[in-house]
Amino acid sequence: MTVMAREIGEQPQALARTLETLLPLQPEIADLAEGRRHLLFVARGSSDNAAIYGRYLCEVLAGRQASLAAPSVATHYRADLDLSDTVSVAVSQSGETEEIVETQAWAAAHGARTVAITNVADSSLARDSDLALVTQAGAELAVPATKTYTTQLAAIAVLVDALSLPPLDFTRVAEEADRMLDVEVAPAATTLAAARDTLVTGRGITYGTALEVALKLEETCLRPVRGLSYADLKHGPIAVVEAEVAVVLVAAPDGPTVEGMTQLAATVRARHATVVGIGGDAAFAEQCDVALAGPALPEALAPLALVIPGQVMVEALARRLGLDPDSPRGLSKVTQTDR
Amino acid sequence: MTVMAREIGEQPQALARTLETLLPLQPEIADLAEGRRHLLFVARGSSDNAAIYGRYLCEVLAGRQASLAAPSVATHYRADLDLSDTVSVAVSQSGETEEIVETQAWAAAHGARTVAITNVADSSLARDSDLALVTQAGAELAVPATKTYTTQLAAIAVLVDALSLPPLDFTRVAEEADRMLDVEVAPAATTLAAARDTLVTGRGITYGTALEVALKLEETCLRPVRGLSYADLKHGPIAVVEAEVAVVLVAAPDGPTVEGMTQLAATVRARHATVVGIGGDAAFAEQCDVALAGPALPEALAPLALVIPGQVMVEALARRLGLDPDSPRGLSKVTQTDR
Repeated sequence: MTVMAREIGEQPQALARTLETLLPLQPEIADLAEGRRHLLFVARGSSDNAAIYGRYLCEVLAGRQASLAAPSVATHYRADLDLSDTVSVAVSQSGETEEIVETQAWAAAHGARTVAITNVADSSLARDSDLALVTQAGAELAVPATKTYTTQLAAIAVLVDALSLPPLDFTRVAEEADRMLDVEVAPAATTLAAARDTLVTGRGITYGTALEVALKLEETCLRPVRGLSYADLKHGPIAVVEAEVAVVLVAAPDGPTVEGMTQLAATVRARHATVVGIGGDAAFAEQCDVALAGPALPEALAPLALVIPGQVMVEALARRLGLDPDSPRGLSKVTQTDR
Repeated sequence: MTVMAREIGEQPQALARTLETLLPLQPEIADLAEGRRHLLFVARGSSDNAAIYGRYLCEVLAGRQASLAAPSVATHYRADLDLSDTVSVAVSQSGETEEIVETQAWAAAHGARTVAITNVADSSLARDSDLALVTQAGAELAVPATKTYTTQLAAIAVLVDALSLPPLDFTRVAEEADRMLDVEVAPAATTLAAARDTLVTGRGITYGTALEVALKLEETCLRPVRGLSYADLKHGPIAVVEAEVAVVLVAAPDGPTVEGMTQLAATVRARHATVVGIGGDAAFAEQCDVALAGPALPEALAPLALVIPGQVMVEALARRLGLDPDSPRGLSKVTQTDR
């Protein structure tokens, strides 16, 4: 068993521990965010995909504007912004990625209150932020982030839930994550192994999940993969969808985006591409060539488990391609963006 | 001569007309944005790439927070956000893209003041917004947007300049755009024609230009192309850079990001990929296998002309590949994202 496979399997427990640790902090989160109308997420890589989930969740559930920081605005342009109406939420597994730490310090210096979401309690990011939400993933040894990513999603859901009514029901997250470990991925891996080009698409609250599946495919299987929003795929690149292209569609089990994703599956198949679906409802699954079941969780919490069939698929595909999923070339664990 | 080539050639005049028309509106823009700390850009496709330029420019020059709307938050989730501190800037060539018009109406209903940037004076978007900045591109007949895109950039620069000090100097924009029409693109087109996979990268104020070059390559030359930020390329996908991959790097002529882009060119070449550079300074050009000159404009205004060598290259590549640049399959001129 690869380290990546083992760490994928640890997610139900990691999610349970993280939720148990962080839910009691909700009153502190609510106090810290009191009166602030804007959330600014600061992140890179997999954490960026977690932040995209946070952005949608915050706007949809908490009714506060949310956006993703462009770190170079802080680190390179040293822009003088008024962030007195903002909570800056920096997301970094290690808590040591320099540009994230630096951007969070910049946000604080410009008036933001600051929250760290990190897996390392004594990291620079945790130490320097007003409040640290420490994920309980345990040490992650494989290069591709899996359990640190899903526990970041859990921390973000706890954060947004602290600012929203009615409360989310987290009770079935861990068991649904566990159920996702057994989804049959072999037909999907076979499909992707044969594809010349791969696109991955999602929409709204599951858009970040689609980007994360794309990033995992790219960094673990060393394949050129494009992660696109539903609308951006419709708006242009659908021109390049054709036979020999595999399109992975990631859909929520319910909510206002499922119908459009189902129509997109039909459109893409009509162009002779192969559709691998993850999640969605029964009508969605029917439009896919290969369908991986998703969790029985409401849309707002589905991403905490919906990525898992994608992770399992990626790990299987990497092995089939003769690659070591634990250590794809060209990547180190603590990523730094140089100057 | 293709229609696309003719419209590329019309950009110097279109830019001059747009600046002449919009610069006198700066006092109105300043009044409308008075006391509002946040700009929200609403856009899709090429207009989205223009909005990314606007986001950086606004934060760097005007010291106001800026972000890109996720239209589905409005159109599908109907989120109840407080936008009383926000100016919503919707960017749409036709002014009729339904989800953009609908998102702008949603923003107004939630307290935003609204600006339309559109090429059609009597469009729904222009009519329904508090202020319309009408670009003077004239009718655009080729499917790939060129002059409507650069004139959107001009409108955005005028808008941000109305909120910033010291003022930008627009006097040389049109003549530098004209000079860009003569950049020699044949070696770059040859390189891209031979590449198995293409990546396009930029950073900061020129990041949107990189994404626009990527989108043009994809929609006009029907090639899978990935547009990535500098940091996201460094953070993960650099693993897939290797021989037979062409990496297009788009760099500003000056400013804090050029040095990093120059280092990235060296890193990518060390991995045996071929680097096509657009813009940058002399040290940057030296690190590229093929270098296309950029305009002699400061970083803040360079994007208004920097994309032009990229457009000329894309048009030449499409013809070389036996495609009709004016009408790539699968695209219609007024794009609608279905429900």
